This record gives sequence, structure tokens and C-alpha cells, in this order.
Amino acid sequence: MPSNKELMLAGELHFGSDPELVAERKHFYTLKLEYEQKFTDDGERQRLTQAILGQCDETTYLQPPFHFDYGYNIRVGRNFYMNGFGTILDCMPVMFGDNVMLGPHVQIYTVTHPLDPVARSSRIEYAKPIHVGNDVWIGGGAIILPGITIGEGAIVAAGGVVTRDVPPNVVVAGNPARIIKRLDVKIDLK
Amino acid sequence: MPSNKELMLAGELHFGSDPELVAERKHFYTLKLEYEQKFTDDGERQRLTQAILGQCDETTYLQPPFHFDYGYNIRVGRNFYMNGFGTILDCMPVMFGDNVMLGPHVQIYTVTHPLDPVARSSRIEYAKPIHVGNDVWIGGGAIILPGITIGEGAIVAAGGVVTRDVPPNVVVAGNPARIIKRLDVKIDLK
Amino acid sequence: MPSNKELMLAGELHFGSDPELVAERKHFYTLKLEYEQKFTDDGERQRLTQAILGQCDETTYLQPPFHFDYGYNIRVGRNFYMNGFGTILDCMPVMFGDNVMLGPHVQIYTVTHPLDPVARSSRIEYAKPIHVGNDVWIGGGAIILPGITIGEGAIVAAGGVVTRDVPPNVVVAGNPARIIKRLDVKIDLK
Repeated sequence: MPSNKELMLAGELHFGSDPELVAERKHFYTLKLEYEQKFTDDGERQRLTQAILGQCDETTYLQPPFHFDYGYNIRVGRNFYMNGFGTILDCMPVMFGDNVMLGPHVQIYTVTHPLDPVARSSRIEYAKPIHVGNDVWIGGGAIILPGITIGEGAIVAAGGVVTRDVPPNVVVAGNPARIIKRLDVKIDLK
Repeated sequence: MPSNKELMLAGELHFGSDPELVAERKHFYTLKLEYEQKFTDDGERQRLTQAILGQCDETTYLQPPFHFDYGYNIRVGRNFYMNGFGTILDCMPVMFGDNVMLGPHVQIYTVTHPLDPVARSSRIEYAKPIHVGNDVWIGGGAIILPGITIGEGAIVAAGGVVTRDVPPNVVVAGNPARIIKRLDVKIDLK
Repeated sequence: MPSNKELMLAGELHFGSDPELVAERKHFYTLKLEYEQKFTDDGERQRLTQAILGQCDETTYLQPPFHFDYGYNIRVGRNFYMNGFGTILDCMPVMFGDNVMLGPHVQIYTVTHPLDPVARSSRIEYAKPIHVGNDVWIGGGAIILPGITIGEGAIVAAGGVVTRDVPPNVVVAGNPARIIKRLDVKIDLK
């Protein structure tokens, strides 16, 4: 019989109120409080970033305050930057490529709930992974919904609510977010 | 002569800068700071939830950080869940039914201000109560405006800005939020 | 050769990772932590407000928590009120007139990034100043983009995403925000 954690990580219906999962969220919260207090000490900041994410490097930057569920399902590439008041509900993996920037108040939600109110009232839930490609910029206050993939080089304008996959090298904006610009990428550094 | 608190609770024009009201907001803030520090201790969490709301039960869950004006005008049903970075400006009652879930960054505003700039610059204000029915799910980043009623079983999609009453058993989304789906509720648990 | 700070304040491309700028942002963060702890003591609150903004008076009110980059590029008029979870990225000046009110979760962004992913991945950035006139009310969750001017007496509805200048005495709403009402201002106080 799989545990609720195993079900969660498999994208299946599960109960977030499971004691193992509650304990893991409390563990994150305790580390987060310490991070907020020690943020201006670079060594402590990097040590706690590693403890929260389980994986990062010296280019990973999290501006407090932030809110995650677990932390360990967030996988960052090189040069990851998340600005203040960011939220990532990481019941399933949130995979970031290199050079990703998140503005303040960005909200990334893997978890969702049944539409049927009786099922929902039991607090059963499930999650879908999110993929964010290299060189993506997600503007302040944008919301990314469960299961979304954002293609490399794409930009989500501030306040965009992303309900569908975003192709590479476009700008999306609005609620729901729609393509407003195709980026004519000229890479000529010589 | 009614006090500013009495005027506030009656939905009348009043000054939030009244010393009695300022002291009550500071009292909330002090409890909130303590809540954030003691959150992982379930006993302390429940004691402080009761102190903040004045009314709750062991199924009431507030994820820190959050921001309220007073706390005592929030009335929760059974199985209330509010995720992180939530704000409820409760100058008048905000009444939640049972099994209500609020995603992160949800903003519920009872208070409003005059449209006339001269009146507004005096800082006079007034509020309208908000009613949220049983089994309502308000998605992350959604905003609920003064005086709104949300019918039971309704869902506000992430990022929805609710400017009009929401009937039961629908999904609303967008800015302003509009009905995008009627939920064909089939309750057959046998 | 101008410093990154000089370039930033001139609206030119610069690196926010410059040690002088990093130290200034840490200085803000340290003051902010102290502000959150001492907020209910009016004397300490006013002292720290002055330390953070460099300029204010006894009518300036910041509801914690909030997030700024520097603080010193925010210039407030009389009777300034910012509610909780507010963010101002003040790489260039954000100039507020008198009697300005910001609801909770308001986001004011002077800073922006190149659209070209290669340039952006270097973390180079630039900013544009923002002007907010007298008697402006910015509703909860609204977003104000770099370079915007909001005319006096204007109202940004809750959740509005302001991508263009707002003329005086109108209400704008939506994402992107559009004019939904012209305010027929009648000033007759006799």
C-alpha cells in the first residue's frame, strides 16, 4: 500500500494531512524562519538555501519572505533568482532551467483539488509537475498553474495568469495569459 | 454619539485612525507575530488561532504569514484552510461556511473608500460584509471585493478578481471574474 | 567610469549584483526586520520609517510586511498609507504626491530587464521612474509597471495591471488596466 507521500510524488490523489507530509512542511517552515533571520549573512544564506532545496549552487538566490510546501521538489538551474513574496507549492517537481528569473509575488502552483465539492471537502488533492525552460523571465505577480510548461526564452508579463503551455521565445500577458509578442531573437555577440 | 468602532461595524462612514481601532489592530499584529514564531507547535497554533479569530475549532488552519485588520470579524466554519500570504481586511464580518479553502495570496477586502478625492483624503472609510458559502474553493491570488456573496460549491479560479456575486456551483475566472463553467454536481456516494 | 549605482540612478544599464548595491539592499533588509518587530511602538515605527525612506513625516504609514530594494528612492508626500504585503522595487525614484493610499499586495516596479535572453542572462538591468499624483488610490493587488505616471485623483481598481499612463480623475481596472469611469469631481464643501 503506497504512502501518501508516494502517491503525491506519483501525481495521484492523496491526503496532504498525512503526518509524514505535515512533518516535512513543518521542517521547511522552520528552515524558512531561520533563513529570514540570517539572510544578510551570505554563508548562512547559502547553507540554508541548500538545506531547503536539497540542490542548488552559489548562484541560487531566494529573496525572503517566500513560501514553499516542501522545497525538495524545486530543482533550480544555474543563476536562479526569485524575488520577494514568492510562492511555490511543490507537491510535485518544479523544474527550472538555467538563468530563470522570477519577479516578486510570483505564484507557482503544482497542486490542485477535485471540482466535485464532496470529494474536495475530504481534502483529497493531487498535483502536476511544472517545467520552466532556460532563460525564462516570469514577471511580478504572475501565476503559473499545475502541469504548465514554459518554453525557453519566454517572458510572462507582470500579472499574467498562465493557464496553457507557453511556447519558446514569446511574451505572454493578461488573465488568462495570451501571446502578445514573438521575440525575434538575434544572437550576434561578435 | 456612536464610536468609530460602532460605526465601522454598522457599515457606516468612520475613521480607522480612531485610537480604539488602532489599539485593536496592534493587538492582532502582536498575536500574529507570536503565531508566526510558534506555528509548528500544534497546541500553540490552535491557542493563537482562537485568540486571533475569537472563534474556531481544531480543524481551522491558517498558513503564515497572513494579514488581517482585526481577526474578530472573521467567522469560520468547520474545516477552514487558508494558505500563505493571505489577506483579509475584516472591518465588517467575513463569514465562511464549512469546508472553505483559500489558496495562497488570496485577498478578501470588506473595506472601501469614497471615490471623491477630498472625502478620501480625510481617511474616512466604510465596509461591507462578505459571505462565502459551504464548499467554496478560492484559488491562489484571487481578490474578493466588498459586499460580495459567493454561493456554495463555487470555485474562483487562480487570479480571479470577483467584482459581482457568484452563484452556487459555478467556476468563475478572469479580471473581472466571469462564469466559465457550470459544475454538473453528481453526488452519488453509494 | 560611473559606478553601477550611478548608472542605476541615471536609468542606464547596470548590474544589481554590484557589491555597493548589494550592501545597500542588505541594509534595507536589516532595517525592515527591525521594523517588523517594533511596529506596534509608534516612536520606533516612526524612527525606522525615517531610516528606511530617508524622508517622511509623522503621517507616513507602512503596514508590515513589505519589500523594497533600497527604500531611499521612495519619496512620499503627506498622509502616505501603504497596506500589508506591498512591494516597491525602487531602483529609480518612485514619487508619491499627498494623500496617496496603496491597498495590500500592491506592486510597484521601476526595474526591468532586456527582452533578449542572452543580454538578460548576464543579469544586466535598468529602471524607469514612477510618478503617482496627489490623492491617488491604488487598490489591493494592483501592479504598476516601470515608467508609469498616474494622474492626481485617479483610482486603480483592485487587481489592475497598469501598463500605460493613467490620466487624472479616472478609474482604471483590469489586466491590462483600462479606463472604466471618469470621476465627475464635485468639490463643494460649504
